[in-house]
Amino acid sequence: MSYVQPGEFTRDTAYIEDRITRDGRDGWPVEAGRYRLVAARACPWANRTVIVRRLLGLEDAISLGLPGPTHDERSWTFDLDPDGRDPVLGIERLQEAYFARFPDYPKGITVPAIVEVASGMVVTNDYPQITLDFSTEWTEFHRPGAPELYPERLRDEIDALNAEIFRDVNNGVYRAGFAGSQKAYERAYDALFERLDVLSERLSRQRYLMGGTITEADVRLFTTLARFDAVYHGHFKCNRQKLAEMPVLWAYARDLFQTPGFGDTIDFAQIKAHYYVVHRDINPTGIIPKGPDARGWLTPHHREELGGRPFGDGTAPADPPASERVPALA
Amino acid sequence: MSYVQPGEFTRDTAYIEDRITRDGRDGWPVEAGRYRLVAARACPWANRTVIVRRLLGLEDAISLGLPGPTHDERSWTFDLDPDGRDPVLGIERLQEAYFARFPDYPKGITVPAIVEVASGMVVTNDYPQITLDFSTEWTEFHRPGAPELYPERLRDEIDALNAEIFRDVNNGVYRAGFAGSQKAYERAYDALFERLDVLSERLSRQRYLMGGTITEADVRLFTTLARFDAVYHGHFKCNRQKLAEMPVLWAYARDLFQTPGFGDTIDFAQIKAHYYVVHRDINPTGIIPKGPDARGWLTPHHREELGGRPFGDGTAPADPPASERVPALA
Repeated sequence: MSYVQPGEFTRDTAYIEDRITRDGRDGWPVEAGRYRLVAARACPWANRTVIVRRLLGLEDAISLGLPGPTHDERSWTFDLDPDGRDPVLGIERLQEAYFARFPDYPKGITVPAIVEVASGMVVTNDYPQITLDFSTEWTEFHRPGAPELYPERLRDEIDALNAEIFRDVNNGVYRAGFAGSQKAYERAYDALFERLDVLSERLSRQRYLMGGTITEADVRLFTTLARFDAVYHGHFKCNRQKLAEMPVLWAYARDLFQTPGFGDTIDFAQIKAHYYVVHRDINPTGIIPKGPDARGWLTPHHREELGGRPFGDGTAPADPPASERVPALA
Repeated sequence: MSYVQPGEFTRDTAYIEDRITRDGRDGWPVEAGRYRLVAARACPWANRTVIVRRLLGLEDAISLGLPGPTHDERSWTFDLDPDGRDPVLGIERLQEAYFARFPDYPKGITVPAIVEVASGMVVTNDYPQITLDFSTEWTEFHRPGAPELYPERLRDEIDALNAEIFRDVNNGVYRAGFAGSQKAYERAYDALFERLDVLSERLSRQRYLMGGTITEADVRLFTTLARFDAVYHGHFKCNRQKLAEMPVLWAYARDLFQTPGFGDTIDFAQIKAHYYVVHRDINPTGIIPKGPDARGWLTPHHREELGGRPFGDGTAPADPPASERVPALA
């Protein structure tokens, strides 16, 4: 049972829940080249899918379409592509793929979305499931040395941790930023920083959330931490401290940033442009802050001293393909 | 010669320029008990006058009225006083004192303002002159041990420094925050942080801006630094770093904060309420950030190691009168 407080921001968590599986039970079998992942660099939920695809080496099996950072109320758009069209799907607006599937699709056009290339239809936008299915259903296309991000013996614990991180951190920053009342904001702020304190304590003793090896839980925490000082601290008023003032979490986040598959998916210019331009309701001028200096992400973190094997029995991914490189930190 | 760029915020710098002087040449002679200083805790320009009044010990000569932190478009109001009226002037809105002097006063109702108690008329709101006159015209009412904040031999250098600090820092944060275009914002941001770098370099070698002793220049820089992390960093997008991430300036600001007459004039709750509630054009929700934790202001600064005599041949002021105490840092 749950109820919503006045002024509380609530996220619509009902998505297109079809899954792409080995057995194809929803009509969407795993198949290399059949699907395209549409994932804006700006979006933290989409960022998860881009990281997991990189870590698992799914680039050749699932291609990547990248809408630009800003969008209007109706849709993400492919305005970064030369002629404003996704080169594979041939569409200008992601909305077209949603309408190809459901002509009267009534809800928000969200990323990440997976689109079937041949039909042009969205298969799923159920982001919490997409990354888990990358790990568990797409195994035959994983690269040699792909890490186990969602090992069976840890799933219950990862799921429980992910639920807390979603509520208080991933979605918590939005609850703070979009709160309609001072009270709702302060409730979100308190829950966020209490959770970050708990996570910080946990990470003071071990290199990653589940121990010595990266899992799905780290991916989910990372995409929020990566945006913390650039956006959430100011724009969403999550300002007890900057991430850079929380020593354990800052070192943890830098460690991941400097790990292949994480920092090489982050585009701070797109991240800032998205939040500050799209959310005119909380930033009416649309002016994008020039700070902070992102080069701090590349400073030594010393987390190796905690031991651990980042990829377990696996290996780090190779560099991303040239077409998927993000700009170097300025 | 100067011209205004499109999108540039410009401050109206034409004030009621009458001066209160020993010789009374503008009709307003220096006289104990004749005038009341109206100065909101929230406002950095008013804060200067409160600090200088404290340092010089003018409390008994010039009484202090304190409007609340928020106001409407028309006026600062005495909403903190028990019946919503200033107990000495008997008015609810500072506007009344402006209209008593100029019935059609066409400009903004600003603090600080000095009001003649008997007539209820504003004498001056020319804040850059008010503090200098406290130092140079009100000498007969200075406390024993009052410091020389504007010594004759340093005036040219202080004036030049104050002009740079005003343009790039005191008013620079407003130019960033109220910029009407990305370009105007970035110009203000660049000038602000370049100036802070120059000041930081200067203060790495000496305890205060003019050497080993506090002057008017320190008062003017302090009131902006005191508001930096609480307001300007997020609300005005001055976010290259927090003050707390600029080691020299942060230690300098804490040193002053912990000096009698400075920190005991700062009320962070009022400061945050003012900016975040009044400026609905850049913070439409009116929600006030809960952070940052202000207790950092009380941590050791080690600036004593640079030597110097904060009050020169003078002494520190005593504690403020009970009626003028600010809340302890939470």
